[in-house]
This record gives sequence, structure tokens and C-alpha cells, in this order.
Amino acid sequence: MPKTSEAPRVVIVGGGFAGLAVCRALARRPVAITLVDRQNHHLFQPLLYQVAMAGLSPADIAIPIRAVLRRQHNARVLMAEAVGVDFERRQLRLHDGEALGYDYLVVAAGASTNFFGKERSWGVHSLGMKSLEDALEMRRRVLLAFEAAEREPDADARRRLLTFVVIGGGPTGVEVAGALGELSHFVLADDFRAIHASDARIVLIEAGPRLLAGGFDAELAERARDQLGELGVEVRLNTRVEDISEGRVHLKDETLEASTVLWTAGVQGRRLATLLGAPLDRTGRIVVEPDCSVPGHPEVFAIGDIAAFVPSGQDQPLPGLAPVAMQQGRYVARAIVDRIAKRSVGPFRYVDKGIMATVGRSRAVAQTGKLKLSGFAAWVMWLVVHIWFLITFRNRLLVVFGWFYNYVLYARGARLITGEGSWRSLSELADEAAGRAGAPDEVVHR
Amino acid sequence: MPKTSEAPRVVIVGGGFAGLAVCRALARRPVAITLVDRQNHHLFQPLLYQVAMAGLSPADIAIPIRAVLRRQHNARVLMAEAVGVDFERRQLRLHDGEALGYDYLVVAAGASTNFFGKERSWGVHSLGMKSLEDALEMRRRVLLAFEAAEREPDADARRRLLTFVVIGGGPTGVEVAGALGELSHFVLADDFRAIHASDARIVLIEAGPRLLAGGFDAELAERARDQLGELGVEVRLNTRVEDISEGRVHLKDETLEASTVLWTAGVQGRRLATLLGAPLDRTGRIVVEPDCSVPGHPEVFAIGDIAAFVPSGQDQPLPGLAPVAMQQGRYVARAIVDRIAKRSVGPFRYVDKGIMATVGRSRAVAQTGKLKLSGFAAWVMWLVVHIWFLITFRNRLLVVFGWFYNYVLYARGARLITGEGSWRSLSELADEAAGRAGAPDEVVHR
Repeated sequence: MPKTSEAPRVVIVGGGFAGLAVCRALARRPVAITLVDRQNHHLFQPLLYQVAMAGLSPADIAIPIRAVLRRQHNARVLMAEAVGVDFERRQLRLHDGEALGYDYLVVAAGASTNFFGKERSWGVHSLGMKSLEDALEMRRRVLLAFEAAEREPDADARRRLLTFVVIGGGPTGVEVAGALGELSHFVLADDFRAIHASDARIVLIEAGPRLLAGGFDAELAERARDQLGELGVEVRLNTRVEDISEGRVHLKDETLEASTVLWTAGVQGRRLATLLGAPLDRTGRIVVEPDCSVPGHPEVFAIGDIAAFVPSGQDQPLPGLAPVAMQQGRYVARAIVDRIAKRSVGPFRYVDKGIMATVGRSRAVAQTGKLKLSGFAAWVMWLVVHIWFLITFRNRLLVVFGWFYNYVLYARGARLITGEGSWRSLSELADEAAGRAGAPDEVVHR
Repeated sequence: MPKTSEAPRVVIVGGGFAGLAVCRALARRPVAITLVDRQNHHLFQPLLYQVAMAGLSPADIAIPIRAVLRRQHNARVLMAEAVGVDFERRQLRLHDGEALGYDYLVVAAGASTNFFGKERSWGVHSLGMKSLEDALEMRRRVLLAFEAAEREPDADARRRLLTFVVIGGGPTGVEVAGALGELSHFVLADDFRAIHASDARIVLIEAGPRLLAGGFDAELAERARDQLGELGVEVRLNTRVEDISEGRVHLKDETLEASTVLWTAGVQGRRLATLLGAPLDRTGRIVVEPDCSVPGHPEVFAIGDIAAFVPSGQDQPLPGLAPVAMQQGRYVARAIVDRIAKRSVGPFRYVDKGIMATVGRSRAVAQTGKLKLSGFAAWVMWLVVHIWFLITFRNRLLVVFGWFYNYVLYARGARLITGEGSWRSLSELADEAAGRAGAPDEVVHR
């Protein structure tokens, strides 16, 4: 690509909340921005669990990055994988060998599911949820379990098919378990003929003594637990997962037989973090300076879920939330402008406006400052905040209609099973649950 | 599953327009219906090309069959693959060995892409469009071609990436080529920085002397051709495809280099048709009796795209259109009721209410009786008819909003590239177009 400008080159890795915030905050500045992402879309990650639980469609919560930046003429978008950084030459290396020169680099590549070193065992037998593909696979597996159960004559096998274990009692685990509770009660009520609501069992497992640790008030965590109970979710606290094998979750004194195991127990910085040679915390996130820069490289910033930012005077890094990512993004944009103008840059300060988690339709917990809400009021607040962000984020009016449709009218338009060979997976799932050998392989028509 | 009723058992294979029409027309009748489909969703097939061209989301045109039949208590739905029929015992065999007994069987399994015996060559190098998965793959490939072109420094390779060949000048080919013309002109105008509208080339190839043969008036076919020309689509008539290889379409005197080849040139009855032992036409469709039954088996009906119904006094079977399928479905429902009541059944008669095809936003052709329309008037008619069907089909108000949003506001919310390893495909695509060997395999972070 011909160099059209001698403006400082800002390269951003990642089109999530953090990366886009930097990019948009630099819209009217004399810089030449290149945003690199492996995906062509920005994902509204706080609602990803809604796609996984068939409440919303992918297009409701994802938007092409090009569409967001269409009119921002100082930015170009490359769909590519960043595989390394040459700090000497100030170049970002891409998967195809291309090297992108930068004056400022912002690493905002996000996080991936953390199976704590057991990717090849636990990671195979349970499903994580960090990308749209993950969420679609979760949707497919959950819906297929119901389909297989409807056809399953054996009661034990049916019980295994309709047992869902959610591992991890953080906000994502609570939201997934709640949505699953609603989905199963709602779906089972009308859609199926042979299975009943009482057949479905949802177990939420948390190793610690409470839900929603790290951010939420203990009292609200209790409210969330009560609300999950109303939706039929069994919450097990102080329960450590010893092992996960095919269709089984092994606890200390018990083995849960469940054909669907959902994993929300941890995230880690994406592998790009390990390539920078910077200090990482134990979850693989880059430990950054007070100005969000990578130690030793003041022109390189790491923000969002890939970074561990520990505010001065505290011992815990900021949580992996969209507001943190967006505030860091805007801060880094200002920092770059100040650096270019040779002005000094103060440290980043996170303004905590509150935290919330939804447990289902009309159930949620929220806290902001000293205000603590649970139940319907919290849910309305959650709805307003999320719709507000989606709208400002872009003219996604459609989402509001989609929400209205799904939430108020209680429809489930996105309840599609897609992916090649869905019916074959169905068959395998049923055989597995029933402990049968493979079905006769009489596949004939496509 | 326990037998809950001694009512006559009606088994329907396929939840498309034909199968659902039978099922819903039997809603208040004393029959026990089982609808079998490999997918969990009904597909509004006339708009499938919109998903393929990123105009609509899958959930906009697909709806879970269970949702459609939720309140129809005489019907149950099985997600399964039908693999054969035992006419003696009156049983439908499923992929997992289950045998479903029937008193009446309706085979409405639809059609699949017909590569005319070249599935393993042409079928590999071009993309068909009969299922949601097909459409999503088409969308992925088309969008990836633009992404790869944006990053491609070599002009020849860029031209290959931005050349799209659509094979088949029937309604689907015309609609796909038109939507692609709009997509490329629209997308290129705003979204990309390195590629331009003039770089994109869309070629529509038809073996016959005119577009839209078999149904449309010759004059309207000319209008469609003009409208395609306005959108920058090159239409080649009387052009036979000799061969398709990797990235190449071989014509008699010329080879088109195109990284994306879309195939809409034919359909055939699904393989289930061949298992019935009934006479098939040359496209593998079951040749049926005047009452839509399978010859020799008055209790078995074949309708919709899997059947070839030749009206008396004519030599061509009815076209594979939703109205044909729906009318046949309602007819067969009546026929079953009449058979049960031992009343005689007259032959099926198709009432042709017209035919239409859209070429893009505000461009279409339509004919009904002697009325022939093209351009904006035809497009409005097309829109009204399709929205009408979608609404009656179910309370899919959302679709109307989606349409409004996409068509009137010209947004492209569904322009998502999903599927594991998208960026890797991107890399392969670029290498292929540039004639390079594989890129260095430095995949690091997930």
C-alpha cells in the first residue's frame, strides 16, 4: 500500500472494546491508523451468552469493523493475525510475513478461555465461550441435547442428555446458567412432546465460597443465588472440579453425568501476550505500567483483557470488563496525542461506574456506588445500560427490536441448529448418552 | 415413545414449504402427525440468497420447526434423517435404525444442488446454495475475497480475488448476481481503502439463449438483463461451462480466472428419492400421479422439489417454487382427509398466481396473468408479497424491521465472517490468487 501520509503511524491489534475505543478517539487527529483483527467483526461481548443460549442472533451483537470505521478516513482495517512484534524496528509481524511499521502500537488482542493447562483434556470435554464461533457451538450443543432427549427412549440416557453443568460462578457463569434455566423451562414447556421441564437439570459449580466474587457485594451474590434457584438452577459453592471426562464432571465425592459441560471458569491473555517478552501475570496477561504501556517500551501499550493493570495502592488488577477496556482505550488515545505533542502524560485512572449481571428475564443484580439493586429494578437498569451502549456503539436499532421481541414477547427466533452434519452429531450424542456403540452408518442423501 | 392415539398416523419427511403446509392443514384433524427433518428449522428458501449476500441473518429467514408447530398438539417433530421406506410394513426408516410406522407418508425432502455428475470436481471448486450452511459458506467466501483483495499488493491477484462468476441464469442466478453487484458496489464504495468499485467484476453465465427461461416472459428476461447491466454484472448468454477447476471457469474460447465461483445451474431431488424405487425424471425427482401419490403406493405422496408433477396436457413438470409446494401440501392434506373418510380424490391442480425475481434494491421483474412489471414497481410487488408470506408464515415482525433496515437504510448488518479459522482461509485465498506457495505457518495465538 502506498504511503499516503507522513502522519505518525498508530497500529492497533484487536477490534474489541479497547481497540475500537483508541481508534475512534483518534478520529480527528493527524495520525495514520491501521487496525488489525483476525475477525472482520467487533463483538459486543457482554451479550455473547445470549447468542450461546439462542436469545439473540450473531448479527445482533456483532458488527463488521469496517462498518464502524467506514467514515473514519484516517483508519484502515486489515483482517490478519498478529504473530509477533519487532521492538527494534518497530514492526508488527503478521501471519503471512507482512511487517507493519508503527510509531505507536496498541496491543488489545483480548483474552481466550483458560483451562488452566488442561486444554487437551478439560478443553475437549467442555465448551468455552469467548468468540462468536464458541457461542454458536454452545448453542448447537445445547439445542441438540434437547433434540436427542426428545428421541431417547431410555430414561437414564435422557437424564444425562438433559443435565447441563456450568463451571464457574463469575458473571458469565451466572448469566449462562440463568439463561439456560429460562431456555429449558420455556422450551420444554411448549416445544417438545416427550420430555418435560422436570427432566432438565442445571448445575452451576463454583470453587469459591460465593458467586460473583471480585467486584460484587456479598449480599447481591446471595440475591443472584436465590434468583438462580427460582429458575431451577442448582448452585454448588465450595465445590472444586477434580476432572472432566467425556460426559462427566468429577467432583470430590460425586460424579455428575452430563452430556453438556460449559466452562466459564477463567480467561487468559491471548498468546500474543507471551511474544512481547514483557512480564505476565499468572493468567498470561501483560503487566503494564501506570500509563498502560508495556515496561521498557513507552510507545507500546497493552489494554483491555490482554493487560493486567493494577491501580496504585491496590493488589488486584482491574477486572476484564468493557468499561475498563473502553476507558483505557480513550486514555491511550489521549496519551498518544500528548506524546506526539511532547506533553507529559498522567497515569490511567479507572472510574468505576458500577457492575451488573443478569440472571434472566426480569432478574438481575446491579451495584453502582452505594446503590445495590436486585430483581426487576436491576434488570431494567441492566437493559437500559446495554441498549444504550449498543445504540451509541452504532445505529443498531434492530437489536432493540430484537430484544423487545425476545425478552418481552418471549420468542426464541435464534434457536437454530446450524453447522454441517448436525443430525449426525445428534446421533452420536444420543449414542453416547445411552452408552451405545455408533449407530449404523447408513447416511444416504445429502 | 408410547402410542397415545389410535388416530391414523401421518408421517411427513421434510419441514419445508410442502411438508409444513401438509402439517398445518391437518391441524384440526384427528390424525397423529410426525414430522421428520434433518434440520431443526424451516427455511424461507426464496430469501436464502439474501443470507448468502450478507443482506439478512440466518435467523431472519429460518425458524425452528418446533416453534411453528408449538401449539399444534396433533404433531410431533423429530430431528432425524430418513434413509429409506419399507412399503410392505409401511415404515419409514431413520438413520439410527428406528422405524416409524405410518398410514400415510408424505415425502417432501426437497432438492439438493445438481452438479450433473461432477460433484467431485465442479462441486469442489464452486459453491452451491440450497441450505443455510451453503449460504453461510457463500457469504464467508465472498466477504473473504474482498478482505484478501484489500491486502493484496499484486494487481493481477487482486483482479482474480475480485472476480465472481455466477453460473446459471435462472431466478437464483439472477438474484445472486444482482445482490452481489449491489454488495460489491456498496461495500467497495465505503469500506475499503485499497480496492475500488471498478476492480470488482461479476460475470453471470447462462448456457441458454436467455435469462429466466421456463416461466418468465422473454421481454421481462431482457429487462432483468438490463437491470443486471446497471449493477455492473456482465451477462453471457449461449455460454456453456466446459470445466471448472481451482479458481478457474473454462469456457469454450476463454478461461475466466475467479477465486469465487457460485453455482446456481441446477437442482436435483434429494437422495431419498432414489430409495423409493419409484420412477425418477432425469433430475432425480419422483414422477408422481395426478393426485401427487407415488405410482403403486396410493398412501405415499411426494410433493415439493423432490417431485416432478406434470400437469395433464403439458410436457414440463411444475417449477420448483414455494407456491407449488404449498398448494401441493394443502392438496395432500385434503386428500388424506378424504381418503380417511373414504371419499374420492380429484387430481391436483396448480393455480399459477405469478412469478417474480428481484435483481437488487428497487430492481425486479414480475408477471402475474397478463400483467408484466419490471423495475421499481415490480420490486415493490416483490417486497409486499415476500413480507406478506413471512408474516403469515409466523409473527416474524423482526424480519420486516430487518428488511427495512437493510433495504431502505442500506445497512449490511449481517456482513459477518464466521467459521473457525477464517483468517487462515483468508491467507490461503490470497496465496492461491497470487500463485504463491503456502504462507509461513506461524500460527500462535488462538
